[in-house]
Amino acid sequence: MTKGEETRQVILGRAFELASVLGVSGLTIGRLAEETKLSKSGLFAHFGSKENLDVAVVEEASRQFVQEVMVPALREPRGEPRVRALFERWLTWGQRPGGCFFVGAGAELDDRPGPSRDALVRACHDWIDELAKAARIAVREGHFISSLEPEQFAFELYGLMLSFHQYHRFLRDPLALERTRRTFDRLVASARTRSR
Amino acid sequence: MTKGEETRQVILGRAFELASVLGVSGLTIGRLAEETKLSKSGLFAHFGSKENLDVAVVEEASRQFVQEVMVPALREPRGEPRVRALFERWLTWGQRPGGCFFVGAGAELDDRPGPSRDALVRACHDWIDELAKAARIAVREGHFISSLEPEQFAFELYGLMLSFHQYHRFLRDPLALERTRRTFDRLVASARTRSR
Repeated sequence: MTKGEETRQVILGRAFELASVLGVSGLTIGRLAEETKLSKSGLFAHFGSKENLDVAVVEEASRQFVQEVMVPALREPRGEPRVRALFERWLTWGQRPGGCFFVGAGAELDDRPGPSRDALVRACHDWIDELAKAARIAVREGHFISSLEPEQFAFELYGLMLSFHQYHRFLRDPLALERTRRTFDRLVASARTRSR
Repeated sequence: MTKGEETRQVILGRAFELASVLGVSGLTIGRLAEETKLSKSGLFAHFGSKENLDVAVVEEASRQFVQEVMVPALREPRGEPRVRALFERWLTWGQRPGGCFFVGAGAELDDRPGPSRDALVRACHDWIDELAKAARIAVREGHFISSLEPEQFAFELYGLMLSFHQYHRFLRDPLALERTRRTFDRLVASARTRSR
């Protein structure tokens, strides 16, 4: 990494933290300048525009997500253990300050077409595909029933994660984690037996 | 209704539509003035501040939600038919322009303590309580199994609605509605039989 790349990485890490808590629209070049003690013109030199900064933040979020959630889960044995690991790692990710960046940013950007929304949609599809792939492997390993549709399982698992976010972050429900785990156990139990 | 109340109601209806599409933070007194052809000072006379306007918009959203989702569903027979009606009405509500107001606003306001967030949390709790109540009645009617925990069922149903919002609004997935209905059928089928 060159010095310039290193600086950019430090800025992006901070920008990602800010966007997690303040939302993508709350992250401004001015605020980032204050937080990093860099000049606004210096930041413009790195990113060019607020829009480019937003895309870079989504990419940084994806990079961290891959590193903290996907990579460790992919080290677990194929099949149900890997499905469980993806879920547990995501739960930990969803308890960071600001909650899951992708859920918050998704709601923020759903009506704003543009490169940041596109980057976010790509990241969500990657994650859903990863969940479906893990379910498909669990079918192949004989852990889940052969009639299970992996995309439907991924849809349900993804919705569970959205619920957790809503109950934990928005409703501040102390039972959020427990309810989420119970639903997950039921979802996995039914993947072992269900015929639809 | 006095003339003043009528005017206020018309303004609120428009404000709610705007906030559904632009988000609560996108709804400004200036924008609302443009849309309603009223003066900003006139709008301030009605609402006093942007914050009061936001609270009034959340209350207007709740009023419409009760009228369009809850009241018609409560006319359905007690038990599973009413649970289904709540779900179907909500699906229709969630397909309005901007999607479900509450889901969008929840994500927007989750880190902003204040009266609008409080009003929104109240509305969400009311809705979740209504779902749990409908499940409780379905247990009492013998449609759902007696070991079903109504709050857990409500959590899962609520999460399904969040998934629908995310797949429909954000990912623009053409299968969103179909996947949501399939999960709902599975959820109801398991409420008839599950022991956990």
